Amino acid sequence: MPRQLFAANLFFEPSTRTKMSFVVAERKLGIETLDFQMESSSVVKGESLYDTAKTCEAIGASMMVIRHQDDDWYKELTNNLSMPIINAGAGKGEHPTQSMLDLLTIYQEYGTFSGLKVVIAGDISHSRVAHSNAYALQTLGAEVYFAAAPGFEDMSMDFPYLSIDEAVEVCDVLMLLRIQHERHSRKSCDTFSYLEKYGLTREREQKMKAHAIILHPAPVNRGVEIDSCLVECPRSRIFKQMENGVYIRMAIIQTLLQEWGMYHEIALEKC
Amino acid sequence: MPRQLFAANLFFEPSTRTKMSFVVAERKLGIETLDFQMESSSVVKGESLYDTAKTCEAIGASMMVIRHQDDDWYKELTNNLSMPIINAGAGKGEHPTQSMLDLLTIYQEYGTFSGLKVVIAGDISHSRVAHSNAYALQTLGAEVYFAAAPGFEDMSMDFPYLSIDEAVEVCDVLMLLRIQHERHSRKSCDTFSYLEKYGLTREREQKMKAHAIILHPAPVNRGVEIDSCLVECPRSRIFKQMENGVYIRMAIIQTLLQEWGMYHEIALEKC
Amino acid sequence: MPRQLFAANLFFEPSTRTKMSFVVAERKLGIETLDFQMESSSVVKGESLYDTAKTCEAIGASMMVIRHQDDDWYKELTNNLSMPIINAGAGKGEHPTQSMLDLLTIYQEYGTFSGLKVVIAGDISHSRVAHSNAYALQTLGAEVYFAAAPGFEDMSMDFPYLSIDEAVEVCDVLMLLRIQHERHSRKSCDTFSYLEKYGLTREREQKMKAHAIILHPAPVNRGVEIDSCLVECPRSRIFKQMENGVYIRMAIIQTLLQEWGMYHEIALEKC
Repeated sequence: MPRQLFAANLFFEPSTRTKMSFVVAERKLGIETLDFQMESSSVVKGESLYDTAKTCEAIGASMMVIRHQDDDWYKELTNNLSMPIINAGAGKGEHPTQSMLDLLTIYQEYGTFSGLKVVIAGDISHSRVAHSNAYALQTLGAEVYFAAAPGFEDMSMDFPYLSIDEAVEVCDVLMLLRIQHERHSRKSCDTFSYLEKYGLTREREQKMKAHAIILHPAPVNRGVEIDSCLVECPRSRIFKQMENGVYIRMAIIQTLLQEWGMYHEIALEKC
Repeated sequence: MPRQLFAANLFFEPSTRTKMSFVVAERKLGIETLDFQMESSSVVKGESLYDTAKTCEAIGASMMVIRHQDDDWYKELTNNLSMPIINAGAGKGEHPTQSMLDLLTIYQEYGTFSGLKVVIAGDISHSRVAHSNAYALQTLGAEVYFAAAPGFEDMSMDFPYLSIDEAVEVCDVLMLLRIQHERHSRKSCDTFSYLEKYGLTREREQKMKAHAIILHPAPVNRGVEIDSCLVECPRSRIFKQMENGVYIRMAIIQTLLQEWGMYHEIALEKC
Repeated sequence: MPRQLFAANLFFEPSTRTKMSFVVAERKLGIETLDFQMESSSVVKGESLYDTAKTCEAIGASMMVIRHQDDDWYKELTNNLSMPIINAGAGKGEHPTQSMLDLLTIYQEYGTFSGLKVVIAGDISHSRVAHSNAYALQTLGAEVYFAAAPGFEDMSMDFPYLSIDEAVEVCDVLMLLRIQHERHSRKSCDTFSYLEKYGLTREREQKMKAHAIILHPAPVNRGVEIDSCLVECPRSRIFKQMENGVYIRMAIIQTLLQEWGMYHEIALEKC
């Protein structure tokens, strides 16, 4: 019988989609899950991420999935742990598994990235999704644009800005971002007028190309970034993204465990 | 090998019994459980029940168990999800799986409902258990009575009221309800005198018919609805109810999954 | 097919190590885990430990693991439940599974306890680990000493005190304890000077015998009880203790289930 593998899922920030998605991916691969509840853990006694991670290693975890509020939490863990660590969200920095599921969703639609016009629209400055996706898409050959309300731009990233009205007309892919109220020190915009000025209204959606698709990492602020009735419209891929999230995470986990020599064929039979 | 089934257990209100009971039922049927911690989920980012449920569906859940504070939370989900949803408590409205385990416990005792005198006693106005049980028992042929302290009545339901002293003498089944302090805006009764005036004291228990049984959905406020020493007395079926809760939920899950064409025989072998 | 066994893990106080360690031990033995989230349970409705435990029993748990803030929480449960209960921490009283993993770690090192000089150093007064270990080690033939800052002594226990400087020179085993800030009504020591006066500095570590080892139940307050750079030094067994925690808990669970006639050979195959 193969060795049981244990995945420790350490989420220091709230999550529904990403966490459940990893759990489903792990269980489909026959991996046991170790759930970590920050608020009932030794973190409340002051234990650091590093010590928490070393503890999981000592207790027998074979891999870790971590979301943490620091932009570069993984730096202190690299080279100090004898197992793969998957980044499930790093502060305002990166969210690579989200990026990969977005890429998969686009690829399923177009079969290529070359020449695709992708507009990333919304709260660019606070979005780890925007950071991960902009560079990945550019590298793969897409033309990447940003659209953002005043104050939501990120001038550290060198991508051209469009207005939302320009954006909807030219894009093949419109990647909306969530306004992250919890990362703004004050409510920096009037959510009631945001939709009309900067969001995807029904009128703007009508101006999109016939084949253009809508992505959003969710959770959606309905009526803010997007008119509520568009969340499940024909060109929306929002729930398709979530479904793809399970598959992409299964692929990432399997690839990493194989690289680390931890994966047994028997587990594959469970898929 | 059969497809893995995943059950998402979404509890938006506290629960020990019902939640654990569903988890045991699911695991006994070979179903994977997806645990949802409201306070560490995207609900704290403002995500709605509908979007949370659609997310679970997209991620691969085959069924959902939901407890939520709204009396009619299920209305927006009906017809919008491609899987069975089980109501594990709806505000002050209904609690059908509790009702079914109560019915099973009574049926095990008497083999019939016809002509049984059942008194539902306590905080009727806030009890989803009372609502579910009163109509179900009446439909099955029982004579249903209420007993309630002043202010705890529910005049929207047409059942005769008895005093607790009348109730204990006539009933075959005494269904006590918990005083739901958390649903009262102010502490509406003096818990110290409640037992003497309206609860099941040892004296009142002595006046019950020899065969009469006591039910309570728990958690019990010991010394309020019932004298603490009666919780495990010979005529109490309180812990029997909990045991039955697992079996009834297994039956409900199995029936629903069969209706939806999701159930595989292999799973049954795990029982 | 063997009966499924369910372990209810009831942690009323924060835990990372102990809880995860029990979950891994249970899963390695093929036991299903029932996770109990105090803050989303009926405990918030006022349910007692006794009633919570009886509920777990009624729902089908075959064993329970409990951590609770009362020093003698187990007294009301003994003789009232038809299953083994494992103490995972009782207030300031005892923490027997931690003690057993500490003993295993020492035994692996020395192959005996007889004549070993063991110093338990730190916050003796609030430490259930100190209580469990001091008597166990003495019974097994070790010479047990305490070292504590003023106010951290426990005069109810009859063991000789050493200064930390004496302690490091004579000990074969230095068992450091965590300063339990959360159990002190006021911050009773200046953590910045604590290390210099009473903790294990690099200078003190240099004075330890060549073969002497360092233990700590963790979580470690780095830079308080111990210089941060010593946590993973060659003589530290801190992470080894955590690894041993899984094995010792597997042994405890297996032994108890066998005593109670609940254990099936098939489960062993999963190890």
